[in-house]
Amino acid sequence: MIKQSKDTAVLLLHCPDKQGIIATVTEFINVNKGNIIYLDQHTDTVQKVFFMRIEWELEGFLIPRDKIIEYFSTLIAQKYSMDFQIYFHSQKPRMALFVSKSAHCMYDLLAHYEAGDWNVEIPLVISNHPDLEHIAKKFGIPFYCFPITKDNKAEMEAKEMQLLADNGITFCVLARYMQIISPEMIKRYPNKIINIHHSFLPAFVGAKPYHAAFERGVKIIGATSHYVTEELDAGPIIKQDVARISHKDTIENLISKGQDLEKVVLSRAVEKHIERKILVYKNKTIVFG
Amino acid sequence: MIKQSKDTAVLLLHCPDKQGIIATVTEFINVNKGNIIYLDQHTDTVQKVFFMRIEWELEGFLIPRDKIIEYFSTLIAQKYSMDFQIYFHSQKPRMALFVSKSAHCMYDLLAHYEAGDWNVEIPLVISNHPDLEHIAKKFGIPFYCFPITKDNKAEMEAKEMQLLADNGITFCVLARYMQIISPEMIKRYPNKIINIHHSFLPAFVGAKPYHAAFERGVKIIGATSHYVTEELDAGPIIKQDVARISHKDTIENLISKGQDLEKVVLSRAVEKHIERKILVYKNKTIVFG
Amino acid sequence: MIKQSKDTAVLLLHCPDKQGIIATVTEFINVNKGNIIYLDQHTDTVQKVFFMRIEWELEGFLIPRDKIIEYFSTLIAQKYSMDFQIYFHSQKPRMALFVSKSAHCMYDLLAHYEAGDWNVEIPLVISNHPDLEHIAKKFGIPFYCFPITKDNKAEMEAKEMQLLADNGITFCVLARYMQIISPEMIKRYPNKIINIHHSFLPAFVGAKPYHAAFERGVKIIGATSHYVTEELDAGPIIKQDVARISHKDTIENLISKGQDLEKVVLSRAVEKHIERKILVYKNKTIVFG
Amino acid sequence: MIKQSKDTAVLLLHCPDKQGIIATVTEFINVNKGNIIYLDQHTDTVQKVFFMRIEWELEGFLIPRDKIIEYFSTLIAQKYSMDFQIYFHSQKPRMALFVSKSAHCMYDLLAHYEAGDWNVEIPLVISNHPDLEHIAKKFGIPFYCFPITKDNKAEMEAKEMQLLADNGITFCVLARYMQIISPEMIKRYPNKIINIHHSFLPAFVGAKPYHAAFERGVKIIGATSHYVTEELDAGPIIKQDVARISHKDTIENLISKGQDLEKVVLSRAVEKHIERKILVYKNKTIVFG
Repeated sequence: MIKQSKDTAVLLLHCPDKQGIIATVTEFINVNKGNIIYLDQHTDTVQKVFFMRIEWELEGFLIPRDKIIEYFSTLIAQKYSMDFQIYFHSQKPRMALFVSKSAHCMYDLLAHYEAGDWNVEIPLVISNHPDLEHIAKKFGIPFYCFPITKDNKAEMEAKEMQLLADNGITFCVLARYMQIISPEMIKRYPNKIINIHHSFLPAFVGAKPYHAAFERGVKIIGATSHYVTEELDAGPIIKQDVARISHKDTIENLISKGQDLEKVVLSRAVEKHIERKILVYKNKTIVFG
Repeated sequence: MIKQSKDTAVLLLHCPDKQGIIATVTEFINVNKGNIIYLDQHTDTVQKVFFMRIEWELEGFLIPRDKIIEYFSTLIAQKYSMDFQIYFHSQKPRMALFVSKSAHCMYDLLAHYEAGDWNVEIPLVISNHPDLEHIAKKFGIPFYCFPITKDNKAEMEAKEMQLLADNGITFCVLARYMQIISPEMIKRYPNKIINIHHSFLPAFVGAKPYHAAFERGVKIIGATSHYVTEELDAGPIIKQDVARISHKDTIENLISKGQDLEKVVLSRAVEKHIERKILVYKNKTIVFG
Repeated sequence: MIKQSKDTAVLLLHCPDKQGIIATVTEFINVNKGNIIYLDQHTDTVQKVFFMRIEWELEGFLIPRDKIIEYFSTLIAQKYSMDFQIYFHSQKPRMALFVSKSAHCMYDLLAHYEAGDWNVEIPLVISNHPDLEHIAKKFGIPFYCFPITKDNKAEMEAKEMQLLADNGITFCVLARYMQIISPEMIKRYPNKIINIHHSFLPAFVGAKPYHAAFERGVKIIGATSHYVTEELDAGPIIKQDVARISHKDTIENLISKGQDLEKVVLSRAVEKHIERKILVYKNKTIVFG
Repeated sequence: MIKQSKDTAVLLLHCPDKQGIIATVTEFINVNKGNIIYLDQHTDTVQKVFFMRIEWELEGFLIPRDKIIEYFSTLIAQKYSMDFQIYFHSQKPRMALFVSKSAHCMYDLLAHYEAGDWNVEIPLVISNHPDLEHIAKKFGIPFYCFPITKDNKAEMEAKEMQLLADNGITFCVLARYMQIISPEMIKRYPNKIINIHHSFLPAFVGAKPYHAAFERGVKIIGATSHYVTEELDAGPIIKQDVARISHKDTIENLISKGQDLEKVVLSRAVEKHIERKILVYKNKTIVFG
């Protein structure tokens, strides 16, 4: 959310937990005259894994930007068997927005985008139906319709992936897209496809969760944003929220109340992804504050 | 919660939805000089079933207390094919409290009981372990230990049911009792046994739900109170609540945060049952406010 | 939320509590062959006031639509000293949307409007700044800019009120409008102007509530939708919601998290108003489910 | 919550924000062979203050326990102008429990205590009324009654403070104590007296907040735990929670629902205090996870 004027580097890492990692990493940055503006870490004491996000200003940093990965890898990462990524704030993530016929999540995401809330580019909207093209047009974003059927799925997805590649897309957001993504596409974007499921997972996996919730007589409904993996609705959970319901609520009410949850839960997950504050480890997320 | 000095009658009913039911029932009470102090109703527009709770003061009511059921049945209920119960406020529900080794729900229930918050009698506590006997003693409530094993279950439950009958028990509360109730006992107390399950059902049915929640990486945990039916953790849900968790929370934290939910969710369900504000229809509850 | 094909009448009333009101009103409708599809009521036992919302289908109703108010008034209302309104579903409420520079509430309301979620017309958007004109244009709604200053306020508001009258506006929504409405205008639209205040009232009345919340170190922030009355932020509350924050949250975070609350809380209040489910009595609301 | 078998040291500190503090502190511990098991830190970017909690195992730590404060002060703290405290896990906090006539918070705290959930000793209960003596007795805790009146307040509090001193009390918990603590006593226990206020502060300061909430017609009620300072209900907030209410809720309902909030919010604040996870700075708290 913070509007930054100066460029920064963000380092996300995890490694086997050992003494001295924080000291070593912060010293690496300090000694090279980087001003640390964010540090959060987490230790999974069960798995004995250490996770960290650290961000520092690049102005005055002694290591040139295009050498940082090499230096960090050579001097620190290999010693601690670290798995790490380095991002620069000035390199905006590029997001492809997938929609179908429901507009609520799409509007919420695009309203954030237009307001300049997020450090992101959205160069295109993809859909399997033409219904929401008028919204993409309102925001001046190119809209591509791929009317996927059982028979043309592989071919259509191949075209989609070409389009994503041509546009330098770094992550995808399924804003109630209602299509199952093929394993090939998931492999291309591992932990880079964010979905919103309209239940508090793992309850009510699959189609028509509000109908299932109504049938079961639950007193709370929910929404879950997660990264897409091959197993349906089973990927790493990023964010969840719930709303109370009662016997008075019809299925129509559940759908209506649920849409408020869906849009907020999806937008908040997208924001965390854009801010590079999510680490994934063994199908679970660490989401830094 | 309301301390009532005057005795009242509570009528709970459901029937096929038709025009004029509310008018008919309220007129029946008005014409016989009953002062209505509570009326709530609900129409299930999918099933086309009408539900109602109505409570009136008995002072000055023209129909003698022991004739009310007969008159209502003859004059109203049969005409509308109603399923109904009538309770009197002065006839306190009698509750059996089942516990095992965890004390948090037991303390919460007994603190409410001792404070006089509820119109209930708790004549006994039943457990399969002696661990919490000291708490029952603190509150001056007889404690019975039935150390159930695979081999003696039928015999032990028979003794329990005799004890419940001898004490005029009208409903049972499983306050983290950790034993599966046999179908025989459930049949004796249909929609009269309240359980607390430590997850937001239908997620994480069965044993060790906090461990399962931790494993799945959910961002919200919950607790569910429900009436016990033969299918495990599948009975009509009365109340649910949730708490946010994050990657920082260990299983121990989930258990600890969950206990706050469990005790409040169970106590609130017990309160609604005592107030005769719950109707069950086709495995779902109508819980009036 | 329910899409209704048949026209209905909605009766909202309150009166001194007495026996037999529900029976009388429902009989009035039944006897004249109206099919009741909604009934909810509430008795304020402190003030001894009875509140009711009842809705019935007009098809086959024996009293002609333009005589219903007269008949109900003559036959029922005067007898019980009722204060009542009757609305027809086919007469859509007409809403004026007031905005300033923040777009989040505006987008949320217009997304609902465009999706056809609500039985409402929005013939115009009014602002004191031109910033959001482009959004009104996207949705094809006329946008009027009244750049109010201390000196021209009375004159500008007079023009606004003329515009509202010309467009048959029945209620106004201040979607982060940031201008104080004059007593004259409030008197024209009593309990017909809905505002969103970005705190859980009555905490942090007035300007910059997020800054005040940050300063005080609260752990929860909120948003409140209410009808506008002459006293600032003191009108009848319709809906409130909150979000947890921590010491990690900057003022920017509070504003960002708060915007999610504001838009949902305002839209939900607007929805209830459109559905004619809100009754106001002595600066408090009864909001039916 | 974690049951620790080995003794640990907890260091809480704040100081002007500078580069290299985390590296320096963790190196101080690592180099002296302390195994860090917890580290959390926070930077207040507005005030430019750095906050940190770090915990390490004492087994094998090269600096003797009774020299740690001296060494840390000499080698680190003075250089960075740190304000710090060091606690040992084996030195249990000693808590005085203040009650009046409402038992719900008292039971919740003592149930946690008896279950061994917390690393604390509760050597005594203090009250201005004898009503809850029977509960203290149930838990085998000495109960002292100081019937404070306007006239004897100074004298009574002097006796209380003597009793607290004699029992080595390190912090006090006002579990709905309903008495205003004098400035003298607050000065003796700065940020060491935890109160529960039955509203979401800063709304409804002072007496009868549920009545005020009912009067105002809010749709949410709350509870706030905070450290006691001289200004009434204005001390640093530790924890807050809320519950939804509606027009159906009477004042009795608000009180009843509120009690669930009060007990959980107070117990959670007490837990954080016992775990030495709270830092206070300029009337705000940093509460580590």
